[in-house]
Amino acid sequence: MIVILRPDATEANVQHIIERAGKLGLKANISRGVERTVIGFIGPEDALRVIPLEVFPGVDQVLQVLAPYKLVSREFKSENTVIKLPYNVTVGGKKIAVMAGPCSIENYKGMAAIAKLVKVLGADILRGGAFKPRTSPYDFQGLGEEGLKILQAVGKEVGICTISEVMDTRQVELVAKYVDILQIGARNMQNFSLLKEVGSTKKPVMLKRGMSATVKEWLMSAEYLLANGNFDVMLCERGIRTFETATRNTLDINAVAVAKRLSHLPVVVDPSHGTGSWEYVAAGARAGVAAGCDALMVEVHDNPEEALSDGAQSLMPDKFQELMASAKRVAKAVDRDI
Amino acid sequence: MIVILRPDATEANVQHIIERAGKLGLKANISRGVERTVIGFIGPEDALRVIPLEVFPGVDQVLQVLAPYKLVSREFKSENTVIKLPYNVTVGGKKIAVMAGPCSIENYKGMAAIAKLVKVLGADILRGGAFKPRTSPYDFQGLGEEGLKILQAVGKEVGICTISEVMDTRQVELVAKYVDILQIGARNMQNFSLLKEVGSTKKPVMLKRGMSATVKEWLMSAEYLLANGNFDVMLCERGIRTFETATRNTLDINAVAVAKRLSHLPVVVDPSHGTGSWEYVAAGARAGVAAGCDALMVEVHDNPEEALSDGAQSLMPDKFQELMASAKRVAKAVDRDI
Amino acid sequence: MIVILRPDATEANVQHIIERAGKLGLKANISRGVERTVIGFIGPEDALRVIPLEVFPGVDQVLQVLAPYKLVSREFKSENTVIKLPYNVTVGGKKIAVMAGPCSIENYKGMAAIAKLVKVLGADILRGGAFKPRTSPYDFQGLGEEGLKILQAVGKEVGICTISEVMDTRQVELVAKYVDILQIGARNMQNFSLLKEVGSTKKPVMLKRGMSATVKEWLMSAEYLLANGNFDVMLCERGIRTFETATRNTLDINAVAVAKRLSHLPVVVDPSHGTGSWEYVAAGARAGVAAGCDALMVEVHDNPEEALSDGAQSLMPDKFQELMASAKRVAKAVDRDI
Amino acid sequence: MIVILRPDATEANVQHIIERAGKLGLKANISRGVERTVIGFIGPEDALRVIPLEVFPGVDQVLQVLAPYKLVSREFKSENTVIKLPYNVTVGGKKIAVMAGPCSIENYKGMAAIAKLVKVLGADILRGGAFKPRTSPYDFQGLGEEGLKILQAVGKEVGICTISEVMDTRQVELVAKYVDILQIGARNMQNFSLLKEVGSTKKPVMLKRGMSATVKEWLMSAEYLLANGNFDVMLCERGIRTFETATRNTLDINAVAVAKRLSHLPVVVDPSHGTGSWEYVAAGARAGVAAGCDALMVEVHDNPEEALSDGAQSLMPDKFQELMASAKRVAKAVDRDI
Repeated sequence: MIVILRPDATEANVQHIIERAGKLGLKANISRGVERTVIGFIGPEDALRVIPLEVFPGVDQVLQVLAPYKLVSREFKSENTVIKLPYNVTVGGKKIAVMAGPCSIENYKGMAAIAKLVKVLGADILRGGAFKPRTSPYDFQGLGEEGLKILQAVGKEVGICTISEVMDTRQVELVAKYVDILQIGARNMQNFSLLKEVGSTKKPVMLKRGMSATVKEWLMSAEYLLANGNFDVMLCERGIRTFETATRNTLDINAVAVAKRLSHLPVVVDPSHGTGSWEYVAAGARAGVAAGCDALMVEVHDNPEEALSDGAQSLMPDKFQELMASAKRVAKAVDRDI
Repeated sequence: MIVILRPDATEANVQHIIERAGKLGLKANISRGVERTVIGFIGPEDALRVIPLEVFPGVDQVLQVLAPYKLVSREFKSENTVIKLPYNVTVGGKKIAVMAGPCSIENYKGMAAIAKLVKVLGADILRGGAFKPRTSPYDFQGLGEEGLKILQAVGKEVGICTISEVMDTRQVELVAKYVDILQIGARNMQNFSLLKEVGSTKKPVMLKRGMSATVKEWLMSAEYLLANGNFDVMLCERGIRTFETATRNTLDINAVAVAKRLSHLPVVVDPSHGTGSWEYVAAGARAGVAAGCDALMVEVHDNPEEALSDGAQSLMPDKFQELMASAKRVAKAVDRDI
Repeated sequence: MIVILRPDATEANVQHIIERAGKLGLKANISRGVERTVIGFIGPEDALRVIPLEVFPGVDQVLQVLAPYKLVSREFKSENTVIKLPYNVTVGGKKIAVMAGPCSIENYKGMAAIAKLVKVLGADILRGGAFKPRTSPYDFQGLGEEGLKILQAVGKEVGICTISEVMDTRQVELVAKYVDILQIGARNMQNFSLLKEVGSTKKPVMLKRGMSATVKEWLMSAEYLLANGNFDVMLCERGIRTFETATRNTLDINAVAVAKRLSHLPVVVDPSHGTGSWEYVAAGARAGVAAGCDALMVEVHDNPEEALSDGAQSLMPDKFQELMASAKRVAKAVDRDI
Repeated sequence: MIVILRPDATEANVQHIIERAGKLGLKANISRGVERTVIGFIGPEDALRVIPLEVFPGVDQVLQVLAPYKLVSREFKSENTVIKLPYNVTVGGKKIAVMAGPCSIENYKGMAAIAKLVKVLGADILRGGAFKPRTSPYDFQGLGEEGLKILQAVGKEVGICTISEVMDTRQVELVAKYVDILQIGARNMQNFSLLKEVGSTKKPVMLKRGMSATVKEWLMSAEYLLANGNFDVMLCERGIRTFETATRNTLDINAVAVAKRLSHLPVVVDPSHGTGSWEYVAAGARAGVAAGCDALMVEVHDNPEEALSDGAQSLMPDKFQELMASAKRVAKAVDRDI
């Protein structure tokens, strides 16, 4: 922790700060510059985080030296985390996993048809929402447990892993019973109650980045999961909110390399939400693979005109097939497989 | 709903769209321009929202004519909503209510001292967090129910209304038992499960704007509350996330006038979070009053150096006193009282 | 300057950095923490800015201690700068100056009518664009020198100061000949050639904040003006670009207090561009005054339906009159005049 | 153009709007919905753009149907523009061109060494700044014409095309004399005087996207160039400004596919500025290629520790070699060459 003082800070101000930190076991190192005095503290920095040094008289700025996350960091664990799923699927290894399926689970027949199709085309994990976070209370909110039953049954029939979103602490146990991966959506990335609850399960979990979350905040939310005992965590970049309106979100491709450098956790890219339009999904998927992601999540629907949500960004099967073919070639070019 | 077709859209595309909308009871009005054909639909527009027209062949853009919110809109209710609270406090009338207190509830003695102080200085509502949404799992998470008991006891002793945040669907009943106003925090603005649960109580609620939520999304989240039966809703502008780093957030002062124009609900301004630094809180409070807000929420602590959270943006009692004095004068200048 | 090393930095890395900085006359102060080593440099920090320390082996982060601006800072000059203009108008003193007029200068008759009107209503400075920065090459680009002649003649006739935008280094001399204040527009805030050219004139200048410029960058652009010899500089907050689309820009009301704290230069608020809609201009103006601005800039047109640009955010004379009346009351409430 | 009226708009309001548009040769098509009346106008939409319909009584919103750009659009020219440069280099064809070199031109010897190196490693175009847009007036501003002479001499000696930035209308002729491609920097993307001046030359030009420019605004700035007679225009995505601070900018990978869909102009990706850190440049370059860009621009320096600007994002030769090798493989995977 580094404390930069104001030009008019007094010696008493300096002593007051040092004393307070000293009680917490920190040693001060003072640099008296021409214009400013700077104090560096050595010792258990976490201790200092509980004191709001910014409000101490004479303080101008307080800078953190250490990253606030521990368990998710590369310093804590240098090798990549590889998450093991049923059907010999892994996320985080050489093979890039593909999650595909409709936005919402609508009915058994439709789900089974899409599941077969995406599996044949190379998908490893079937996605589908049973509890849907919808901006409007008047929009379709998902089938709930009925949807989860469909997802589980289809997964078993087709022989494919499953993922579905959990939105409420009270649903965690329920959703965990039916699926292989719990998804925490972008809007709940800082729903800390939910993070704690999901962190205390043993289910693999995919944590979507909040639409205005920094990479640091995203990692801190992942830290909640690990700190509560769940180490099978995937990070999912799904586009951030910016001023640009030509696309629904701005896929932050930089975040893939940043997250891979700072953390050992696998990184998923969701080009469907990351672009918001079926016309740009394949380009986003290829870019994600080229940038080093460990998995892709893609919305696929065999009849987007009838989809109950997010039709505009769903790929028709033929487009998904093209995406898989081109993503596979890019994967090879970066020494990965799909 | 207006559908703009691509330049190469065919007559068959046009007919396909019209037919599909016709089944939902909508009448089409076609404008064939030199370069583009445009279809306007007349009838129950909500019906159309379930069809993803964007993916229909030949479609370029789909534009909504009607706002997606109903109950929160000025069209639904033209006069301002005035929320009645204990101790004859109202929010939404001529008098601008002031909510003040520490970020977190820390102990009875401290809370009582601050409560007396802010009441004497003119505050109407005592704030204090018992369940705290903290970015880091290692930071102080609040006293929980113990904190709520302190808040309630202090409120009764001092004779002041109380507000505290609820973060989890499972806590709604508990928190509602102890406080006069439930607060939904910025990070939970689109926690739709929580919105539904709080919407089904009878407690007044303050809905903070998400840090990257548009005014429209904020109103849609409020719509969840009203649609579930709770009409005693206040909107709270607390700063949005932008590229600017000189302040913790960017107080969106425009949002006050926009929300007041579009909705009948009262608007609260929180300059503490809106600026993130005690040096700018008073300016933000005055700006909020000048722009037409119905209430202020301000963090006050009598010893910020010992605060367990958000010390940097907490006002010392003397600064809060100054803020009240200057805000009062500005309130008069816009024909309001504080 | 503070250099934070990577956990795996070697002693040789540390020595390499210290040696290099030593050649520039800087003394190093090393803190060896448990997890990280941190080097603080004491001496002429500017010297270090030419070395890209970020790329030195072993370096993780480099933090600046001192602000990069000098002449614009409060440390350089603690009292407020007051700019003197013709007709005894000042900007930066107790009286809040008001700049008003149409977006573009359209013709003599119209301009004279508006000038008389805004002067009667209390405006001190007449605004009007002769060179217009238009997003589209097909939109009206302004009357050029003809417009400047009109502005000057009207200013003299009515007895009011004038301001107009300069967009091109080749026009600086020309525009300076006709107006009392040169305006540098938001899109040219980092047109450094223009800044140098305007900095070398003796004309007062108003520097608009770029739509995605941080306050620090804005002050650095002002620094270009002062460093080239022109100290009569006003800063103008005119809204920043964010994700919000309900308003054309987001008026950054925080920036007023931040700029006033960091700099001695006067701060103007432009609620017309800051909101983009006539319905919100008065609220923005009042908020600006309440937050401590030194001047307002407002677009006024007596017939917005016929305006050649920015009609949507122009006030009709009756609305401008209301704005003046209410801004005046708020000014009094913060011990200022209008 | 579509005009949506307020719920309380009168028949007189409607007639007033229709009359005014009728005078410009537009035919109105009125849809009277249950809640709103909507008017669609057919005819030369450009005519309408000069009337600020937003301010007409009764108007709620005005929506543009047609894109405001013409010459840059795919509708105007469906096949890709291919720009021909010396040494048989093209931009926009099957081969992805690579621009590489230092941020600033520093001296002949260094420039020649880097030029030889990047040419051997496969670069087609040598970059180097002679006029540098620096945030601080105290930073190195470039060698000016001396730098251009060095660039030209090195280009001829090594046999490589050259590109350099032009910042001032007065420098356009000068810079055009020395280089093969004029660069317009991000900060000047809406310097319309400069756009007009560069548009009236015959030199190929690369237009960088402004850091907060929408794709639409970027295309409108390109339209200025084409409308003034210069059709040899490349668009360059170099990262946008967002809330994220882990990287200097956010490379908007979506913008590549969006720009390629809307326009026939070639798209360059600059991962050096797009990420701001040498550690992420290669990932950004590969993502750009995978997303469909036509050229890459990369900062390379053989001694970043001594670079006079942007050292932190410059690649050492060995890292550039790795980038070229991996980008080449990705290019093949998307049926392109490097």
